[in-house]
Amino acid sequence: MKEYTVAVVGATGAVGQKMIETLEVRRFPVGRLVPMASARSAGQTVEFRGRSVEVIEARPEAFEGIDIALFSAGAKVSRALSPEAVRRGAVVIDNSSAFRMDPEVPLVVPEVNGETALSHKGLIANPNCSTIQMVVALKPLYDRFGIERIVVSTYQAVSGAGGKAIEELLDQTRARLAGGAVSPSVLPVASLPVHHPIAFNVLPQVDVFEDNGFTKEEMKMVNETRKILNDPEIAVTPTCVRVPVVTGHAEAVYVETKRPFSLDDVYGLLRSAPGVALVDDPASQRYPMPLEAEGRPEVFVGRVRRDLTHPRGLNLWVVSDNLLKGAAYNAVQIAELLVERGGLP
Amino acid sequence: MKEYTVAVVGATGAVGQKMIETLEVRRFPVGRLVPMASARSAGQTVEFRGRSVEVIEARPEAFEGIDIALFSAGAKVSRALSPEAVRRGAVVIDNSSAFRMDPEVPLVVPEVNGETALSHKGLIANPNCSTIQMVVALKPLYDRFGIERIVVSTYQAVSGAGGKAIEELLDQTRARLAGGAVSPSVLPVASLPVHHPIAFNVLPQVDVFEDNGFTKEEMKMVNETRKILNDPEIAVTPTCVRVPVVTGHAEAVYVETKRPFSLDDVYGLLRSAPGVALVDDPASQRYPMPLEAEGRPEVFVGRVRRDLTHPRGLNLWVVSDNLLKGAAYNAVQIAELLVERGGLP
Repeated sequence: MKEYTVAVVGATGAVGQKMIETLEVRRFPVGRLVPMASARSAGQTVEFRGRSVEVIEARPEAFEGIDIALFSAGAKVSRALSPEAVRRGAVVIDNSSAFRMDPEVPLVVPEVNGETALSHKGLIANPNCSTIQMVVALKPLYDRFGIERIVVSTYQAVSGAGGKAIEELLDQTRARLAGGAVSPSVLPVASLPVHHPIAFNVLPQVDVFEDNGFTKEEMKMVNETRKILNDPEIAVTPTCVRVPVVTGHAEAVYVETKRPFSLDDVYGLLRSAPGVALVDDPASQRYPMPLEAEGRPEVFVGRVRRDLTHPRGLNLWVVSDNLLKGAAYNAVQIAELLVERGGLP
Repeated sequence: MKEYTVAVVGATGAVGQKMIETLEVRRFPVGRLVPMASARSAGQTVEFRGRSVEVIEARPEAFEGIDIALFSAGAKVSRALSPEAVRRGAVVIDNSSAFRMDPEVPLVVPEVNGETALSHKGLIANPNCSTIQMVVALKPLYDRFGIERIVVSTYQAVSGAGGKAIEELLDQTRARLAGGAVSPSVLPVASLPVHHPIAFNVLPQVDVFEDNGFTKEEMKMVNETRKILNDPEIAVTPTCVRVPVVTGHAEAVYVETKRPFSLDDVYGLLRSAPGVALVDDPASQRYPMPLEAEGRPEVFVGRVRRDLTHPRGLNLWVVSDNLLKGAAYNAVQIAELLVERGGLP
């Protein structure tokens, strides 16, 4: 079997580390792993297949000879370096928001619109974590019944904001338990002037605000859902909220279908949907939770119930590991799809 | 000024303690405070106006001479003892769910339907915490524009499940930080067989499940909202979720009004609404959060934004101290209303 030289850009970050782990766990045909990061992190090592591999600086020349480059180092790095990687013959799978809405760039969730990956021009975008898990859960319902609108509230883990946000949650929690003061410096958005405590708190801000009063995270859910489902009409009303959870995003999703559904059909579709694990047994108090989703590749769906007030209304509770299906795992799945279906040069 | 003999039933519980604090802070005309609890807790003391007051056992005879009895000891105790208190001439303000949907019993949020308290027959019900803060925020919009439907997701603090749930969150958090195992025994519902960890997790179950797939907490939001707004047609679609927060419930509320609104009107109404504090300035990252609401009597509203997909759709983020406006403070407000408007015998 052919093997590939695979770069991971942002290799020392929360998602980058999961990308490397996922390449190993999924036995992706990696001939050589090239972990890259900023000059500051170059020289560190990462573990891959039981060996330490040195992290090199991500520079244009470093992409010579790379077949596949998984980027997860923020939009700025992606904008600067991914064209350089593509120019040198690499196929880039980019986890940042830099190119997601570019009409030339496929935005891919393999279970939902995998075929679009094959029309890439060197660059494929990995969607936002909150969007991925929602569309995986909704795709089978969308195909069968159509979807008119979605109202979604998220319960997002801090690891979505990176390793420093995880540290901040844990440090603040320790300080609060000891009765001490906390000095937030990372959440909700590290680059903004104001920070709020996350320990024993919830923050109704994920990413920066746009002029319409929605945050960028919320607008990603609106726009990326439309692009992935290839449906510019679908209405999405999101509220994105950070909660004091390390890993695992949860979402309360209200959906209005276009055509009538039976609950039996909904259960049947979710049970057989690719990438979905139905966990729904109120009698034994079984439903998805972030702690149980952590480390798992599936999108967990539960609390499936017909709305009491609208004949085509349906409520779902959707949970997934934001670092895996929401980021690293989805990116590696895209790479696998390219290998299997001839999407690499 | 006339003074009253006031009983607090459940005086050693999380809400009972806040009731006693609130009576003191609000300078309610208490002539004598009679804290009551189960036989197990009788003999303990509570602090009131700088003095220790002994807790007595809540028994039928204990209500002789009581003018006002604030109950917060669970539905079972309310069902058994509140008729005994009423028979002995007390007016009961009951924080449990026992009588809320009884058509003979007013269900009162003073800012919303205070006048209904005056038609009481000895018993007045205090609504569910999640419902109270939502209807206080929505009342001015309801009056001006009408409300067709509400889709709400809650982020509920553990103190809503009592003092033992607070201890469980803190103990589990300490154990998890130390890398230890946790053995949940209180949340989501102490009396049910299955318990899930709450530290660094979220639980999509508050109270027991009903046959329709909704929890009792969710159905309280549906039914109590209708009763308080005196509108059996209003549609409420709730998802109630417990988060690792000690005190302060948050809610992502999506509303569809009956008549068109302007955002300026909405801001104006919320700014002048009784009991509401508008905290809404995305540019300076100001919005309501549980940690800032703790200990405050107001209902905080922010993230006010017009829905992008429905011309009469509006999004709000509503936060309040679940032990205060959600319970103790609302109950004391009802007592104040009775005093001021001649609602006591």
